[in-house]
Amino acid sequence: MDALAGLIAELPDGMVLTDPDILASYRQDRAADPAAGTPLAVVRPRRTEDVQQVLRWAAAHRIAVVPRGMGTGLSGGATALDGGIVLSTEKMRDISVDPVTRTAVVQPGLLNAEVKKAVAEYGLWYPPDPSSFEICSIGGNVATNAGGLCCVKYGVTTDYVLGLQVVLADGTAVRLGGPRLKDAAGLPLTKLFVGSEGTLGVVTEVTVKLLPAQHRGATVVSTFDSVSAACDAVVTITGKIRPSMLEFMDSVAINAVEDKLKMGLDRTAAAMLVASSDDRGAAGTEDVEFMAAVFTEHGATEVFSTSDPDEGEAFVAARRFAIPAVEAKGSLLLEDVGVPLPALAELVSGVEKIAADRDVVISVIAHAGDGNTHPLIVFDPADAAMEQRAQQAFGEIMDLAVGLGGTITGEHGVGRLKRPWLAGQLGPEVMELNRRIKAALDPDGILNPGAGF
Amino acid sequence: MDALAGLIAELPDGMVLTDPDILASYRQDRAADPAAGTPLAVVRPRRTEDVQQVLRWAAAHRIAVVPRGMGTGLSGGATALDGGIVLSTEKMRDISVDPVTRTAVVQPGLLNAEVKKAVAEYGLWYPPDPSSFEICSIGGNVATNAGGLCCVKYGVTTDYVLGLQVVLADGTAVRLGGPRLKDAAGLPLTKLFVGSEGTLGVVTEVTVKLLPAQHRGATVVSTFDSVSAACDAVVTITGKIRPSMLEFMDSVAINAVEDKLKMGLDRTAAAMLVASSDDRGAAGTEDVEFMAAVFTEHGATEVFSTSDPDEGEAFVAARRFAIPAVEAKGSLLLEDVGVPLPALAELVSGVEKIAADRDVVISVIAHAGDGNTHPLIVFDPADAAMEQRAQQAFGEIMDLAVGLGGTITGEHGVGRLKRPWLAGQLGPEVMELNRRIKAALDPDGILNPGAGF
Repeated sequence: MDALAGLIAELPDGMVLTDPDILASYRQDRAADPAAGTPLAVVRPRRTEDVQQVLRWAAAHRIAVVPRGMGTGLSGGATALDGGIVLSTEKMRDISVDPVTRTAVVQPGLLNAEVKKAVAEYGLWYPPDPSSFEICSIGGNVATNAGGLCCVKYGVTTDYVLGLQVVLADGTAVRLGGPRLKDAAGLPLTKLFVGSEGTLGVVTEVTVKLLPAQHRGATVVSTFDSVSAACDAVVTITGKIRPSMLEFMDSVAINAVEDKLKMGLDRTAAAMLVASSDDRGAAGTEDVEFMAAVFTEHGATEVFSTSDPDEGEAFVAARRFAIPAVEAKGSLLLEDVGVPLPALAELVSGVEKIAADRDVVISVIAHAGDGNTHPLIVFDPADAAMEQRAQQAFGEIMDLAVGLGGTITGEHGVGRLKRPWLAGQLGPEVMELNRRIKAALDPDGILNPGAGF
Repeated sequence: MDALAGLIAELPDGMVLTDPDILASYRQDRAADPAAGTPLAVVRPRRTEDVQQVLRWAAAHRIAVVPRGMGTGLSGGATALDGGIVLSTEKMRDISVDPVTRTAVVQPGLLNAEVKKAVAEYGLWYPPDPSSFEICSIGGNVATNAGGLCCVKYGVTTDYVLGLQVVLADGTAVRLGGPRLKDAAGLPLTKLFVGSEGTLGVVTEVTVKLLPAQHRGATVVSTFDSVSAACDAVVTITGKIRPSMLEFMDSVAINAVEDKLKMGLDRTAAAMLVASSDDRGAAGTEDVEFMAAVFTEHGATEVFSTSDPDEGEAFVAARRFAIPAVEAKGSLLLEDVGVPLPALAELVSGVEKIAADRDVVISVIAHAGDGNTHPLIVFDPADAAMEQRAQQAFGEIMDLAVGLGGTITGEHGVGRLKRPWLAGQLGPEVMELNRRIKAALDPDGILNPGAGF
């Protein structure tokens, strides 16, 4: 505790929090890792220099630092450690938009939605759109290389990060990349930090690339009485055109959303697809007509297209609402497995089998156009046996995805909860490569130990 | 030479070349590095296993290995070293296209143009298009994170690499990433290797993401009597829309091209812009009309638009022909500096001043929409004093770009020729980060020593 007194004295008043109730509220992120510890303190820096002081202090005392954005992570990447520090970037909230270079310089604590809003004032668009965009921070998005619904056409966070300011494990602050659209000077270190889950450094500033405002396009919604028919339709579409969104909900999700929103969704459907095109003018309409025709060819039970953006948005909102709607049925273990597109149907049917075998409800929603699915495993936390079966299913789904040539995480990161399954995907040599990079950048292992890999 | 006999014995007949004429032909890439050495041997593996054997052998004997694609690099990234091995991937030429996942698995020796052609048979498109696309290999493109003309809308090589097979310095072969559109498992190592210039491993297989065939759109060509007016027009356009190409040629380039192609280009113009939109239908035409209007507003002396793709392609071909056309005037030192877009005019006028001060001809062509320029410094190799002035100008242009917040290389890589200027851009801490990663992956420093950083 002498060490901590030193940190409190070094930093501005109120920046280091030690109140037990506050510490308790920073123990877990949304993954609610049951193994979470209680941190020594929560530090909420305002400037890069503050972060440097925290890391110099942590390095000197060999104290673990868990960087944290808004705590919306779903893999336990911000789980607190006993005796460690939680470094929350929530107070670092500056943004400056440069409409001329179509870039913005953003501090990590700003919400994704706030970035979108700030740049929209200049007629610009920051594409990455995790479902949690209204509550998650850019810093967390960079740490996990967050995705979302638009990725099928517009890519993920790393595709929009041109530069970073990062504080390294020893407190050194470095600038990587910058507002240059192409830069091949030196190793691509900016890219190395995006998705590194706070294990290599603390990001204190992000330079993002922006696009002109997205055209609000046309949308088609379709229901199927067979999951595999819906998945086949997805593969037919992505082989031919570039939809701006291509989302999947299974029967459990459809019913959970209908329970809450009462939109008139077909409760008897096995699957629903929501697809959009944001191409301008006739091209967007053509794309939607093409997708509607593909759905019909694949035996869709209902196909509804609209070029009214608000009407289209209602279906997107239904898809976005699927996680909270399913969550109303119990506690969730939230998966993020991805597969090469042709294996999508096999993944979904494999998950159905796991649900039956383990006698738990699992709802599959998916960024189908990316092959990235979110099986939501529902359990009653008061039923220990069911919780254990849910945990078994959680692991089995990751094993299933890896067996299909897939990944244990498409966009949420490994965090702490998925770590036991990572070696099964990467193999021992690639795990060793991860460790070598980590050792080179954080030799004492103070940055988010136990997370990421 | 005993060591070499061992390698020759281990590998299939004819894979290791030691004929002096052949060795001489592999000493340099297109950068014609005057400091090039003579290698002990040239090895042309056919399989990943061959590459593993070469690297195991090189590691055991601490012999430097210079990986080489088709030798079209412009920074000396494949300069041979005395007593080292040149590992040419030119014989590794397999490709398999998967139209369902819209991906292809490509060996490094295939030409960029061959990849484009192979995937076009499936109605698909591999976007990155360095000007050398007909003679450069995918392996070299991955090593340098190559760009091209389409990058202003479609990004660079790293944006299309989903997975790699890489042989590490000790001969271990690893698979990174794969045919998954989103993958957040472990550190983003795939991204680390793209642009690492053969310093961290030898890429033996690349999984690339493909797009549906590009729509052949509309093009607008415009001349200006002022470079800064042309640059201002560029910035106005990129702030508002996403052209699929936005290229710049200065007066020297216009005249050099006109000397050769006799297209009727305006020899009195100070600058020419060639811009395209590949958006379908009315949207593409609108974009081109918008760009034409912006050119007019910025005082263009001539504006010509066409929605005939062949007519448009003739102007693109003129732009592509600029380097060979200028090369006809003497030997070239070819720059690749980039700046944030608003600094483009200042960069070009600064280059003009350097040309005047050093009394050499410098022609500027640019991927203007990216802020990535290629000043071509022309000199007579028989005139030692002029060559020295050209070398001075070469360094001064990089210093100028860095001073404007830019980069010494946008898409060609640092190689050996630009290395003295890298620390000026990155600073000592980032240089140290580069070296730490290198030491972690290639502790004996056998992979392309002296290149990259």
